[in-house]
Order: sequence, then structure tokens, then C-alpha cells
Amino acid sequence: MKICRFNNGRLGVVDNGQVCDVSEALNLLPGCGYPFPRHDVLMEHLDEVRAVISRLLPDAERLQIDAVRFDPPVANPGKIVAAPVNYTRHLQEVLSDPNLHHDNQINHIERAGLFLKANSSLIGMGDPVAYCQPARRTDHEVELVVVIGKHCKNIQAEDALSVVAGYSVGLDMTIRGPEERSMRKSPDTYTVLGPWLVTADEIADPGALELTLAVNGATRQQANTSDLILGVRELIAFATRFYTLHPGDLLFTGTPEGVGPVVPGDRIVASIQHVGELQVQVVGGAE
Amino acid sequence: MKICRFNNGRLGVVDNGQVCDVSEALNLLPGCGYPFPRHDVLMEHLDEVRAVISRLLPDAERLQIDAVRFDPPVANPGKIVAAPVNYTRHLQEVLSDPNLHHDNQINHIERAGLFLKANSSLIGMGDPVAYCQPARRTDHEVELVVVIGKHCKNIQAEDALSVVAGYSVGLDMTIRGPEERSMRKSPDTYTVLGPWLVTADEIADPGALELTLAVNGATRQQANTSDLILGVRELIAFATRFYTLHPGDLLFTGTPEGVGPVVPGDRIVASIQHVGELQVQVVGGAE
Repeated sequence: MKICRFNNGRLGVVDNGQVCDVSEALNLLPGCGYPFPRHDVLMEHLDEVRAVISRLLPDAERLQIDAVRFDPPVANPGKIVAAPVNYTRHLQEVLSDPNLHHDNQINHIERAGLFLKANSSLIGMGDPVAYCQPARRTDHEVELVVVIGKHCKNIQAEDALSVVAGYSVGLDMTIRGPEERSMRKSPDTYTVLGPWLVTADEIADPGALELTLAVNGATRQQANTSDLILGVRELIAFATRFYTLHPGDLLFTGTPEGVGPVVPGDRIVASIQHVGELQVQVVGGAE
Repeated sequence: MKICRFNNGRLGVVDNGQVCDVSEALNLLPGCGYPFPRHDVLMEHLDEVRAVISRLLPDAERLQIDAVRFDPPVANPGKIVAAPVNYTRHLQEVLSDPNLHHDNQINHIERAGLFLKANSSLIGMGDPVAYCQPARRTDHEVELVVVIGKHCKNIQAEDALSVVAGYSVGLDMTIRGPEERSMRKSPDTYTVLGPWLVTADEIADPGALELTLAVNGATRQQANTSDLILGVRELIAFATRFYTLHPGDLLFTGTPEGVGPVVPGDRIVASIQHVGELQVQVVGGAE
């Protein structure tokens, strides 16, 4: 099932090129007062929500995909975890280019560890990427994103897919420079997710998905998740040795070779096989 | 005013060694359904909450401080931002000790940038720090924490104190090793905040506060925030050149020299002049 959020908080299911409005299913989620949950309650209750969606679907209002504005499919991730240099050829690319490594030490991912992106940087396909710090270079990075569905700690790799709610297409937009990744990759709008989430049951093997990224129609990145250094299972195991993952946490699995700069006016199209196609416009940022 | 959260979600004001229960003031905060706000609504509405608190205070139930269990004073921070190596003598300490730098390049803070800590790592004084990965070293780091009160971007240093809601005492617990700071400093319970928030009007100059940390009664860290390389104003200006800060975002300002390991059974007491004293127990982590 392809689940989306659209038009400022509505819930949809993508079917046959149309978005079916199943917002009524959100009514089963608990509302509350302060303090609010620190994880995503839609992902926590996804099984029950899907059951209600199935009942609503036959009579749901249908909208053309081009007519809706996509919000990020996960509204309240507790944290956004991301893998640095997780494709061998991207590691080689970073090591060979001073504009990418900035004289920083570039470690193998198991020594580098995972980093965090700010929740405040998250947008959906309906919003543009607003260029931050025009004097510096901002790059595109397409990534398969894992959406966590369960509270989990110290998960073994062989059990790891059982905690996955679904997958989505992500852009890990990045200012190049020497600072911590968790800062350079966290400006407002620098984390794009969407257009929808594909539930885990539709992806037999997350380690065999073609992904591509084009800027203004020219292909820049093209790879397969089979080239990941740490695959989805290993990344989940690695992360949960340090912290609990919670429903709605996002895990950006890393970008392949071919990263490069974008400028205001560019149109990015990122596509992952069996998951979806994410289109986003780059605009000048507010100063 | 010293504002706290205690006993699993109650709101209090600390007065004369007692906690006054003013939970009724939380009723003015808007409740809602999914999706929930991505920032802290108590900090967003702090002025109105304080007005109600003032009316409630004369008749509020009073509890002894030792009889309450403190939650973190901010429940829903959108992000937790932290400054690395922001005291000169701590920078020297890190550069001189392989157990601290792990052959990583240690940059000046303006080149290193700020890092993020996971929201899922946040606890209050009422919870213990649970040791993560017993085979590795975990250190204490005491820090002055700035609680942001307004949505703000591209703030000039001279205006920066106007966006501060208050201050608190923080422990930036840290696994030593080569990985990204945003991972090593994000295990569950590795971000301790409290016991309360002191509103900004009570701190004339955040750049002139004594801070100390003791483990089992022996002083380990002792410094003054006047030794910060980037002060509170400059840190806010630096952060907001990259991203919007939102009400409830936490800014850990960096730790001074004297960092060192703790082990299960240790008791940490961290104190900041005019702010408060945070006491926390270190226990073995669940495997």
C-alpha cells in the first residue's frame, strides 16, 4: 500500500495514479494535550490504520495525483538518522575530491558512525528546497529511506526487517564544507521525503532497488541498493546498538556516487524502483 | 521564575525549597490530534503560562523538593543542538589525549560546527543515566543549556538573548570513540536536563556563571561560562545561520576541561550558579 499525507494533513492512499482520501482513518489515532508523544503515532498504529483504510477505500474520494500537494509521509519523526559514505564508489568520490572532503578525515561507515538530521529540516514534495547560504555549495543526495514501525533496541541484523513500517524516497540535501554533517545537512527544507511511503510488505528485498537522480532532466546519480556497504538490516542493527529506534524514526541509508551541486531554479527528480518518484524544485532561500 | 515538570507531567514552580503544583496552567495550552506540533508548545506560550501561574501560586499545593521526581523541564524539544570543544582548555585537553580525540581531526568550533543530539536521549533528573555499551568509556560533560523561546532564523548576536526562554543545567553524556558526535552522544538517557528551567529574566549575564561537576563528591569540572569560545549570543547567531530555531529547542553550550569517565554506581552532581543543581545516578544499561 502507498500511503501519503497531502494538502496540509490529509491522509491518502495512492491507487492507479490517483490519491484516495482516507483521512477519516486518522480519527482512530489518540489526540492529546501537552506533552505530546515524541514518536510518530501514525506509524505506531499503522496496522490498525490500514485496516480502517481498507474499509474506506471503495468509497473514498479520488483526486488526480498532479492536483494534490504532498506533505512528508511521516509528520512527527522522533529522529532522522542518516548513513554517511555508505556506497563504495561514493566513498572513493569523496576521498578524491577536496570539494567533498574539505580536509576532514573520511572514515569507513562503521568508524564514522551514523549522523542525525534536524527534524525541523523535513519537508514533503509539495514544498521547494530553499537554498541556504548562497555563497556556499549545496549538493543533492538521493537515498532509500527506511521508516521505522516499532520501538526497538539492540536488534540483530537477521531480525531487523521486522521493525520496518515502509520505505520512501529521500533527498539528503547537503551544504559542502568542514562542519559536522548534522549541521550542514539540517537547514530548513534540506530533508525531503516522499511522495509517499510504500509499506514494507510491497518490498521483497530493500537491497535490490535501482535508484536514480536527475537534475533538469540530466541523470546525475544511478545505482542499486545492492551496492550499499551496510544494508538496511545492518544499518538498523548498528543504530540500535546506540539508541532505541521509535515508530516514525527515519533512516536515510546513504547516497551513491554522482553527488553534485544544485542552484535555485533547478528541478530534482529522484526515483527508487518499486518505491516512487520524488520531484522537487530548488528556490532561493529567504535571507 | 524556576519552572519544572515533575511526577510524570505535572507543572511546578520552585519556591523556597518547595515545588508548588501549578499544573492547572497547562490547560491553556492547545491540545490536538495527529500531526502534533514539531516544537514545544509550553515554551511557545510561556508568557501566558507564567501569567496564569502567578494567579495560581498563592493557593498552590506545596511539595518538598526531595519528594518529587523531576521530568525534563522541556518535554518536546524539536531539536537538541550542542557545541563541541567550546572552552579553550577543553580543546587543549582533547587535542592532547588520544582517548578523547581517537585520531579524529579536532577543529575550532567555527570550523567544526554544531552537532545534534537525539531527542530520544532526553531525560530529567528523576531518571538514571543507563550505561550504554559497557565495553566502552562513557564520560560526563556539564553544560549550560539555553532553552529557546521563539521561532528565529538569521539572528544577529546582539539581538540573540531576546529569543531565550530560559536556562537549565545539562549533562551531555558521551561515549568516547571515533564515530560522529551525533551518534556517540545520543544513546537513551545520555542527555540529562534539569532539574528546572530558570526564566531568562533571572539571568542577567549568561556569560558569567560558575559551573561545576562532581562525581561521588570529588570535583571533576570547574569553570565559568566567561571562558566560552563562542558565548550564548554567538552560538544562537551561528545556529540560526543554518536553521530556524523553534520554541523549546535546546542549545547545549559546550563543556569545560575536566571530562572523565563514569561507571555504573557513580553519582553525578552538576551545578550552575543562579540556575540550579542537577543530581543523577549512573546505572548499568539493559542489554
